[in-house]
Amino acid sequence: MNKGQKLLKKAKKIIPGGNQLLSKRAEIFAPNIWPTYFKKAKGCEIWDLSGKKYYDFAGMGVTACLLGYADNYVNTKVKLTIDKASLTTLNSKDEIKLAQSLIQIHKWADMAKFCKSGGEACLVAIRLARSVSKRQNIAFCGYHGWHDWYLSANLKNSKNLDSQLLPGLKTLGVNKTFTNSMFPFFYNDISSLKKILKKKNNIGIIIMEPMRFTKPKNNFLKEVKKLAKKNGLILIFDEITSGFHDNFGGLHLKFGIDPDLAIFGKALANGFPISAIIGKKKIMQKANETFISSTMWTEQIGFVAANATLEKLKKFKINKKNIKIGKKIKQIWKNSAKNNNLDIIIGGIDTLPSFKFNYLNQEVISTFMTREMLKHGFLGNNAPAVTAAYTDKILKIYQNSIETVFNKISFYLNNRKKFPLNKKDIKLSNFGRLTG
Amino acid sequence: MNKGQKLLKKAKKIIPGGNQLLSKRAEIFAPNIWPTYFKKAKGCEIWDLSGKKYYDFAGMGVTACLLGYADNYVNTKVKLTIDKASLTTLNSKDEIKLAQSLIQIHKWADMAKFCKSGGEACLVAIRLARSVSKRQNIAFCGYHGWHDWYLSANLKNSKNLDSQLLPGLKTLGVNKTFTNSMFPFFYNDISSLKKILKKKNNIGIIIMEPMRFTKPKNNFLKEVKKLAKKNGLILIFDEITSGFHDNFGGLHLKFGIDPDLAIFGKALANGFPISAIIGKKKIMQKANETFISSTMWTEQIGFVAANATLEKLKKFKINKKNIKIGKKIKQIWKNSAKNNNLDIIIGGIDTLPSFKFNYLNQEVISTFMTREMLKHGFLGNNAPAVTAAYTDKILKIYQNSIETVFNKISFYLNNRKKFPLNKKDIKLSNFGRLTG
Repeated sequence: MNKGQKLLKKAKKIIPGGNQLLSKRAEIFAPNIWPTYFKKAKGCEIWDLSGKKYYDFAGMGVTACLLGYADNYVNTKVKLTIDKASLTTLNSKDEIKLAQSLIQIHKWADMAKFCKSGGEACLVAIRLARSVSKRQNIAFCGYHGWHDWYLSANLKNSKNLDSQLLPGLKTLGVNKTFTNSMFPFFYNDISSLKKILKKKNNIGIIIMEPMRFTKPKNNFLKEVKKLAKKNGLILIFDEITSGFHDNFGGLHLKFGIDPDLAIFGKALANGFPISAIIGKKKIMQKANETFISSTMWTEQIGFVAANATLEKLKKFKINKKNIKIGKKIKQIWKNSAKNNNLDIIIGGIDTLPSFKFNYLNQEVISTFMTREMLKHGFLGNNAPAVTAAYTDKILKIYQNSIETVFNKISFYLNNRKKFPLNKKDIKLSNFGRLTG
Repeated sequence: MNKGQKLLKKAKKIIPGGNQLLSKRAEIFAPNIWPTYFKKAKGCEIWDLSGKKYYDFAGMGVTACLLGYADNYVNTKVKLTIDKASLTTLNSKDEIKLAQSLIQIHKWADMAKFCKSGGEACLVAIRLARSVSKRQNIAFCGYHGWHDWYLSANLKNSKNLDSQLLPGLKTLGVNKTFTNSMFPFFYNDISSLKKILKKKNNIGIIIMEPMRFTKPKNNFLKEVKKLAKKNGLILIFDEITSGFHDNFGGLHLKFGIDPDLAIFGKALANGFPISAIIGKKKIMQKANETFISSTMWTEQIGFVAANATLEKLKKFKINKKNIKIGKKIKQIWKNSAKNNNLDIIIGGIDTLPSFKFNYLNQEVISTFMTREMLKHGFLGNNAPAVTAAYTDKILKIYQNSIETVFNKISFYLNNRKKFPLNKKDIKLSNFGRLTG
């Protein structure tokens, strides 16, 4: 048992699940072998507790660190801020600068508010939307966090959220009064939205991710917006995962569809905690008529780090460079799959590329891949996030490793051999199985 | 108009209310004159945008910075962490250390979970409590943040929260299905709790602050616990404000009453964003059966800063020293009030001392005091928070300033003269008036 796994065992005794995020659990990557904890990280390199170095092709901090870990440009400004105190009785002038930047990037928006986590930002957006909408129920598409309002979608039918992002989400402890307030619709299926709107479900709000794995088809986003307008609904784009990766701002800018509110988090400050809600004045100013307030949201590391991240993204045109890198990664998978006669489906925006093994036992294959990639010195699953820290040299090493690993996978698959994995070592991607 | 007020005007155009926290709004201290923004801060000194220096006797960052601003001990460790990356694909080993410390300090607790803000931690505690309780409604006493579950107390009767901490809280946008789920009771009034429990309101949870202004009387906390046990209710102590000030841990340790869950925030990491939920295993482990998960909660500055804060508090016995300082501050108020024939009521735990002017126009008097204290080089209201950075020398300057300002107040009050204040300059403490 490696040092990380030993510590995890200790952690689980005093922290439920061992950590604070499902997507960082060892069990979701490679149970019993995943390094789990880090000692330090820089660029796209990360060292485990034993001092072993890996290249991170497994999401770069749940997609947050697109400039690379411990980025000098951002960190220098953050450390200066800490020297000058990051939270006091008075306010940070950096929050105004950040609000200005976000509004300049998103011309349709007039005002901004800030929180620390993505779940909070969703909640603020919902509160604001409900403040102007007479109807309080919600149509949603995609993943929007751990809060009661979202999970309540599973209260009536425990499979309502299965087709969004995380299957098997449980609702223990969720306020029962939420039952019947949430209505799922499906990406690229405009009829699914039309159907729930027709039923007069008291829906006043649409919240959705502009895109995850599949590109919008048949003007899907435009049609959603048309329906929102026609029915007088507030349209919220949840850009927590999609924002600032492929382009400088929300992904909706690229698609040319403006919402009424948009939410950002993750990559906004290269991994320092902050989230943002931007929107039209008539909605945003309702924050003055309802109570939305938190001490930690005023702490200024988040503002400073976000300002520095936006500066660097713009100055060095990083989004464009990252798209090129992402295309290369997709090409590496495509070529290696072809070379080794593997059936994979590639998707995601270029800077958040991902693929699925198109086989029934895809979880076994993915686990095998991750375990093999560890041997090659990679944290590697099928959903990396592009960072500016990926160099051509590193991509070359990655390419060679993928080729070798895909070749091994091909050996087992195409010779119909059993993968050399114990059941307990197979990763769990279903929330129910992971925690139940 | 000073630089801070000018910037605030600009801020209000793009950020609703101008900032992210009610308790940091200029209008709550001294409208039109409050410095509002800071350039830097160190110890208990803080510099405004014009470079003017003040001593902070107005809460030290909403009570969060009990070691003092930009504390070297904590900051050194935080900056090292930032150099080594603060958020990655892997987990922080510091979260385990922090969980261990909190459990060691609170022997009744077995496990810990962490968030970033206090509001989130309340929500997690409520979810966990609901996970074990068959009854989902809540009896509460005190202030517990901006979330729907708390504000919904005002849905049925808009004055339900008035006697807690913030009067006039509005409920625009709060989920209407929450109506009838929240039941307030009152501090040191055990009959008010008995009354709502008798009515079979489907109450399964009690959440309360162990103490704010007034000390518990007639074994109030013990009686609450007795009722909780008798009725099979989960008892949650919200220690976000009270924790780690008067003593090394939750204030409930001092009173000798253990809850089932306790929540910490604010002072836990000397102002760096983190909040914690600790509790008994049978409740905490329910987190494995419900979905509670957030990317930003895994960022390790909060863990490192909290560990360093706890280390320093323990090593230098700071809680004991701060109590002595707090007693001195209470004595300064008592003496100056007596010297100047002023009627004030002093309350709060020693490290979070506060007082009220016992006159009908107390808001006018408080504003006048704050405006005068600014002239003396103090951010000074009637609710400072003790920091270890207060020296005898600074307390002496504070004493002289309070004496002078109380003398002026006495002149107006005891000669029945009108305070030289325009209506628009008087501070607003009622949320409704502040935002409506």
